[in-house]
Amino acid sequence: MNNTNSSVREQRFATGKAVLDTIDGDAGQRVLDSLADIAPELAHQVVAHAFGDIYSRPELDHRQRQLVTLGALTAIGGCEPQLDVHINAALNVGLTPDEIVEAFLHTSVYAGFPRALNAVLVAKRVFAERGVSVS
Amino acid sequence: MNNTNSSVREQRFATGKAVLDTIDGDAGQRVLDSLADIAPELAHQVVAHAFGDIYSRPELDHRQRQLVTLGALTAIGGCEPQLDVHINAALNVGLTPDEIVEAFLHTSVYAGFPRALNAVLVAKRVFAERGVSVS
Amino acid sequence: MNNTNSSVREQRFATGKAVLDTIDGDAGQRVLDSLADIAPELAHQVVAHAFGDIYSRPELDHRQRQLVTLGALTAIGGCEPQLDVHINAALNVGLTPDEIVEAFLHTSVYAGFPRALNAVLVAKRVFAERGVSVS
Amino acid sequence: MNNTNSSVREQRFATGKAVLDTIDGDAGQRVLDSLADIAPELAHQVVAHAFGDIYSRPELDHRQRQLVTLGALTAIGGCEPQLDVHINAALNVGLTPDEIVEAFLHTSVYAGFPRALNAVLVAKRVFAERGVSVS
Amino acid sequence: MNNTNSSVREQRFATGKAVLDTIDGDAGQRVLDSLADIAPELAHQVVAHAFGDIYSRPELDHRQRQLVTLGALTAIGGCEPQLDVHINAALNVGLTPDEIVEAFLHTSVYAGFPRALNAVLVAKRVFAERGVSVS
Amino acid sequence: MNNTNSSVREQRFATGKAVLDTIDGDAGQRVLDSLADIAPELAHQVVAHAFGDIYSRPELDHRQRQLVTLGALTAIGGCEPQLDVHINAALNVGLTPDEIVEAFLHTSVYAGFPRALNAVLVAKRVFAERGVSVS
Repeated sequence: MNNTNSSVREQRFATGKAVLDTIDGDAGQRVLDSLADIAPELAHQVVAHAFGDIYSRPELDHRQRQLVTLGALTAIGGCEPQLDVHINAALNVGLTPDEIVEAFLHTSVYAGFPRALNAVLVAKRVFAERGVSVS
Repeated sequence: MNNTNSSVREQRFATGKAVLDTIDGDAGQRVLDSLADIAPELAHQVVAHAFGDIYSRPELDHRQRQLVTLGALTAIGGCEPQLDVHINAALNVGLTPDEIVEAFLHTSVYAGFPRALNAVLVAKRVFAERGVSVS
Repeated sequence: MNNTNSSVREQRFATGKAVLDTIDGDAGQRVLDSLADIAPELAHQVVAHAFGDIYSRPELDHRQRQLVTLGALTAIGGCEPQLDVHINAALNVGLTPDEIVEAFLHTSVYAGFPRALNAVLVAKRVFAERGVSVS
Repeated sequence: MNNTNSSVREQRFATGKAVLDTIDGDAGQRVLDSLADIAPELAHQVVAHAFGDIYSRPELDHRQRQLVTLGALTAIGGCEPQLDVHINAALNVGLTPDEIVEAFLHTSVYAGFPRALNAVLVAKRVFAERGVSVS
Repeated sequence: MNNTNSSVREQRFATGKAVLDTIDGDAGQRVLDSLADIAPELAHQVVAHAFGDIYSRPELDHRQRQLVTLGALTAIGGCEPQLDVHINAALNVGLTPDEIVEAFLHTSVYAGFPRALNAVLVAKRVFAERGVSVS
Repeated sequence: MNNTNSSVREQRFATGKAVLDTIDGDAGQRVLDSLADIAPELAHQVVAHAFGDIYSRPELDHRQRQLVTLGALTAIGGCEPQLDVHINAALNVGLTPDEIVEAFLHTSVYAGFPRALNAVLVAKRVFAERGVSVS
């Protein structure tokens, strides 16, 4: 890699980092920190690709992206740590606790009750930490 | 079951069928028809439970529900027939072709490129059938 | 919603709750309690739909339903809390510890060894709590 | 490998093949034939391990094993060819069309409606081929 | 986006396209062509991110990457179109037909026999098209 | 079962146990110990089938098999205990920490970032326990 490429790499990271900070706040940084000494390239690509290439696009707004994300993460299963980050993100971008829980109930139609139950129990913990609640 | 229960059963079905017709139009009816002689109770519950119990709730509007649905169905995989129905549904409730394709691109972050590719190719067929296209 | 609908809602819940109590006993109630302040509608639908609409049907008996459930939950993966509930349920309706563990071994053919291993270790804990064991 | 091992290998295959023939009939043989020139060892292990080691065990009877199998295959998704084989197998060992369809409806609780819909449509084709139907 | 960004975008695409051409040949181009009018950004990111950012890294060689890919795609399920591309890619980078089929047999241990069977039948078709066979 | 069969059973176990000990060392034995009183036949088949029938075949070497395994286990999800065993196994057969982490990064292309993140955090713990690190 030459200097130009290093510069491109830093620029892509900066673009993604600005989006990540807006959406995930400290939780995003904690994920990056946990990866720093084991998988720095994975950390880089989460920022540069996921947030820099994809989240930065205007075709869907932040609330719409979190609705898609909540549906996908719930359906995939085994993504409790990522649900924690994105329930926080959903609150950060203005989805209400009721909308978030409803997204999990809605996903039960497509992915079954166990996936919805596991997601809701993550929301219960996140909402308690943030002092918010469903109406 | 007594008459009261039959009445409840018909009422729940009617509630769901009204929502289903609004969202899925003919595609929903075709799914029900395909189930009529093999799994009538499954057809009944798709209508009465999925659409009557869940879709009818006001906590998320129709467009939000389809965003969650597109994220979930893409992530689950192997749901091409259901993606066909819900890409149509998404268009019916006012999501644009660009928003729908972006939802699949967004899901690639969480579920990988193959899931997104398979979903996009269903959208390609549905958009062609309906004479719509991305901008 | 009018009074009629409220009454229907309570009736559906009561039907499901009677089935749930028969099969899951206290474990079912604990799941409902954990959802009460975060997702009361999800709790309602688990009872009214899963147990009231589906489990109450005579086409399969309780033991047959738990065999299907154990196969499905093992294959889905990431459903350890639900496996805990349904291993208890399977014992409650008369499946033996040997039959339950054999269901997990059998599922390894279709879903691989890791899913079977994870399910068996849940059974190990449940069997110890209940003081039962394989022969 | 020496002659003793060849003999063991043939013996394991023969044990499994007898079980396979009882349960799957011609459908099992067709799967083996399709693998003969591309993956003979996979064909061997399906017979020797799945049917010889696991299906031959007395801890669950044939009907119970097919209920577990139907739950698992439905939940896994993307297993339509295997569902075809095992819906046939379920009929062969005495499960009724109603019990088979009910197993799919039951699995919708745990794996969502799309998985159940896809499985039911395989049953529709198999039942038509065999001239059986739900009551 | 300014000219600099356009240039970065083209550069990333060019890097990935060179890797894609080496590994996937015409099959890669056909995937891109199928996406051109429906999801051009997904096509761009498959090239720029998957092949430009990830495949281009020296930490694993091409054969190693295809072994990981075959294990992952088989386990995910429902990825038959992608398995077609990557069985071709595996042959292109020097894995033998026997190694490819063995990767599927090996994955049966972790993901069950149905996933391995579905993958092997894709290999059967690809090998026939290319006139290669297992020994 | 007659004496011949018992002997065959012991022989198959011994073949697999020798492979398991080579690859997994103490971690493999701990898995077997955890199953001894709950699912001895599952323990037997993990050894006799997975390691005796499959791992012992020469078509792929130990490093190649662990690359396939890491791709599959990461993609399946919910297999953190098995990833722990097989990250250790991968190190035991000579894959480097960098190659292991790269396999997880590579799998993110096919299975999404959450699966890769979860796998990397297991590697972080295993590497710390063994006193190894990425370069």
